[in-house]
Amino acid sequence: MEAIRADRGKIAFLDQRKLPLETTYVECHDCQSVASAIKEMVVRGAPAIGAAAAYGMALAAASLMHLDGELFLAGLAEAAHGLKATRPTAVNLSWAVERMLSVARTQAGREPRQVADMLWEEAERIAAEDIAINKKIGDSGAKLLPQEVRILTHCNAGALATVGYGTALGVIRSAVAAGKKVIVFAGETRPYLQGARLTAWELMQDNIPVTLIADNMAGYLMQKGAVDAVLVGADRIAANGDVANKIGTYSLAVLARAHGLPFYVAAPLSTFDLTIASGDDIPIEERAAAELTEIAGVRIAPENVAVYNPAFDVTPAAYITAIITEAGVIAEPTPEKIKRLFTVHGHE
Amino acid sequence: MEAIRADRGKIAFLDQRKLPLETTYVECHDCQSVASAIKEMVVRGAPAIGAAAAYGMALAAASLMHLDGELFLAGLAEAAHGLKATRPTAVNLSWAVERMLSVARTQAGREPRQVADMLWEEAERIAAEDIAINKKIGDSGAKLLPQEVRILTHCNAGALATVGYGTALGVIRSAVAAGKKVIVFAGETRPYLQGARLTAWELMQDNIPVTLIADNMAGYLMQKGAVDAVLVGADRIAANGDVANKIGTYSLAVLARAHGLPFYVAAPLSTFDLTIASGDDIPIEERAAAELTEIAGVRIAPENVAVYNPAFDVTPAAYITAIITEAGVIAEPTPEKIKRLFTVHGHE
Repeated sequence: MEAIRADRGKIAFLDQRKLPLETTYVECHDCQSVASAIKEMVVRGAPAIGAAAAYGMALAAASLMHLDGELFLAGLAEAAHGLKATRPTAVNLSWAVERMLSVARTQAGREPRQVADMLWEEAERIAAEDIAINKKIGDSGAKLLPQEVRILTHCNAGALATVGYGTALGVIRSAVAAGKKVIVFAGETRPYLQGARLTAWELMQDNIPVTLIADNMAGYLMQKGAVDAVLVGADRIAANGDVANKIGTYSLAVLARAHGLPFYVAAPLSTFDLTIASGDDIPIEERAAAELTEIAGVRIAPENVAVYNPAFDVTPAAYITAIITEAGVIAEPTPEKIKRLFTVHGHE
Repeated sequence: MEAIRADRGKIAFLDQRKLPLETTYVECHDCQSVASAIKEMVVRGAPAIGAAAAYGMALAAASLMHLDGELFLAGLAEAAHGLKATRPTAVNLSWAVERMLSVARTQAGREPRQVADMLWEEAERIAAEDIAINKKIGDSGAKLLPQEVRILTHCNAGALATVGYGTALGVIRSAVAAGKKVIVFAGETRPYLQGARLTAWELMQDNIPVTLIADNMAGYLMQKGAVDAVLVGADRIAANGDVANKIGTYSLAVLARAHGLPFYVAAPLSTFDLTIASGDDIPIEERAAAELTEIAGVRIAPENVAVYNPAFDVTPAAYITAIITEAGVIAEPTPEKIKRLFTVHGHE
């Protein structure tokens, strides 16, 4: 089960729109089709769309390498623009695209053909790093969990949302590998059902006990004492530690606080956006009404009903027990603690 | 749009499983088919299943009226048992069945044929009273709302959940009738989608502005300041004011508290169960996994996934700003206030 398969000159995405009923791959040979795959959520999850966009840039470079240096760079900038426009909230996408552009600019003295090769290698490096980073996140996070723990997660922050291993589900994998007894509740995550379709499926593949619930059951489970911690991924983290993540995350954070439960966020440093002071400035993507009014083509709401469908929300730092990164755990995040972590570890 | 149509000797339910795509009625000529209709949620909503069960008892009486008095009463008791077993949480069902039994017992000296006639009339009385009660609830509740108000509601506590007018949606109807400007957000109410399928449809029929959201968007809306009040119905209210209602209600109550918003419950006195001290003792129905794993026959979760599907939760009285009844508003409910209301107004 790999969300992204890359082979010099082409890339294939596990079609996450069709999981768990079908396991098929969508092949992309150019940057435009990668952008479409991101936009249409063939591939999703902040780290995964970062890596996908990096490969998209590498494919763009390959198609532009017959041009002279200046046009080559201009073409890459246009490809970058197109990729960034696909989905606005997750910052890993623009992080990866900028990293690719930076390599191209640094190597502007070389032949475009040579730079294109270097860009493919850079995309492979981003992908390989993502897996290594997730394992570090997993190991850091697993230490925070008790020997027996019942975790509520939301959306899919797993192997399917990354190049491999996962962020929130990476923490769960590491805890299981360390011999801890983990039971997972997966919120189905309306409207797109990433919890039901992806997280439940992914954990079942690994034989990690998972129980599917509707999102609105979280409070009841906590009230009954059936949950020990909430653990989610992130799409963008502001300089003050505010976390944008899948819609519904904020409700879980408020519920966790009301029940005295820890609320953990697992994310790589590439998910931080230090140019943004607080979550107020994070753009929230709104998606089509049909995600709410239809499921698998079956209509479940009246024709012409008004719909509000924000895909993300922002959880203020004050609700977060800890952010788990590859560079360590930031307990009760503040701007100072985040700044310090980046000063010590840099940001790629 | 009537949830229940009664005509001496038969009763028809608007098939709420098929709304909003189809408007069809299911006819019942005997008590068993009424029980099935309740169990399979052809008819749902605490007051509606109360009235449905009353008609079920009347149909049972008609089929038993050739028996002698003792066997007639024994048959009615058996019918009552079958009706009560259909759904455990809403207390209106057993309230209505007991009221019907009580009439039969009081009139035990008469001919069964005559008692059967009286039971049909009693069922009609319960149905007529329900509409009148809902209008009183609506008028009481509307006074609590400001001139312009954005209300978040959950599940369907409307005309479809009652014999007519609705409890929570009755309050909204009365507010609109009083010239208030009301905007409604309807949580879709997974897994059974009563919000998407029923509340959105019902409000659209009345041209009351409604916007459909996923349940997990409630916190985000409140955080943005887009909601002024939460208003829901109830399936059973304990003597201390704890409220059992559709799963997800408790999460909304916690969110409302965290955002300083009023949380209103609209319900008739027949929804109170004074034999139960607190919500801890209210039985919570668990329903089939398929409600979560399939929508309209389309599978949306992995085969064999473990599912937890409680249909209701309990909101402690401490989270409730007011319970709106036909006998007046109980602000910040306590056992004493509830007892006083029943002492003054009786319970039918």
